[in-house]
Amino acid sequence: MDAIQCMLTRKSVKKYKPDMVPKELLEQIIEAGLNAPSGLNKQSPIILAVTDRQVRDELSKLNAGKDPFFRSDPFYGAPVVLVVLADKSVPTYLYDGPLVMENLQLAAHALGLGACWIHRAKETFEQPEGKAILEKLGLQGEYEGIGNCIVGYADIDPEKKPRKENRVFWIE
Amino acid sequence: MDAIQCMLTRKSVKKYKPDMVPKELLEQIIEAGLNAPSGLNKQSPIILAVTDRQVRDELSKLNAGKDPFFRSDPFYGAPVVLVVLADKSVPTYLYDGPLVMENLQLAAHALGLGACWIHRAKETFEQPEGKAILEKLGLQGEYEGIGNCIVGYADIDPEKKPRKENRVFWIE
Repeated sequence: MDAIQCMLTRKSVKKYKPDMVPKELLEQIIEAGLNAPSGLNKQSPIILAVTDRQVRDELSKLNAGKDPFFRSDPFYGAPVVLVVLADKSVPTYLYDGPLVMENLQLAAHALGLGACWIHRAKETFEQPEGKAILEKLGLQGEYEGIGNCIVGYADIDPEKKPRKENRVFWIE
Repeated sequence: MDAIQCMLTRKSVKKYKPDMVPKELLEQIIEAGLNAPSGLNKQSPIILAVTDRQVRDELSKLNAGKDPFFRSDPFYGAPVVLVVLADKSVPTYLYDGPLVMENLQLAAHALGLGACWIHRAKETFEQPEGKAILEKLGLQGEYEGIGNCIVGYADIDPEKKPRKENRVFWIE
């Protein structure tokens, strides 16, 4: 898919088929994410590629929190969650992480998959259960959750939302 | 250019020819930027498209600050600066802004142009001279600088920097 077209037609998909995405496609998406730029090329963001159902469901539960009014699965049924975290000790980490998230979303769309940014990754990994997931992977201390990029086969074709007016100011 | 290839081959360009970029190309780049996703689709980020030499030079000067040891032009000679700012009153503004920045950089690369994220947009618009630029445009109060996307014709073909190891953790 053409790069500009990809950016213009990407939509946030909020309903997924349960089918698992082949690992080969996920690897392409992740590679695109890793190639995002970063401040002083520090490449501080990392990606947890979660396809294990139990961990995916645990992350969903941690994301929803204790509010019983919150929707039951914040990941909208998507079978894959690519969690981006970034090293807080790098001054630009909060800018670097979202760039990876954007590449993940664009690459998923380019490959015919649906994707969506789900917030509250920060809160997830501040909880003991979230920290335990990182510790199991040997990731300690400095990582802050940036975003969850859910990925799967879209079970809906959402409308592209119009862009708001007055967001560009020319000084020419 | 293919979207995935675009993400894999994009590089941060740090030397530019002085030639101005046609407005029609800048408009395509900006449109790609505006189409980045945003939290709850609030579309809080805005773009200042600066091609005016005087304002471009002023932004460069404000960016460099008062440190005489700082390089003379932090914009590396690029004739265009697309400044992304985002509305601080939107809770996700710090995540939304960088997504626009990534689309700008990718779109420039897809169109055969060079681009690079230059930091210190936040600091620029905290200074009285930066605030004055926003006030002149009728933009008051809540906008924080996210990044400067410099754009122009590359005068160098930088090597693609290798990706660091151990940034992907599979939970499958």
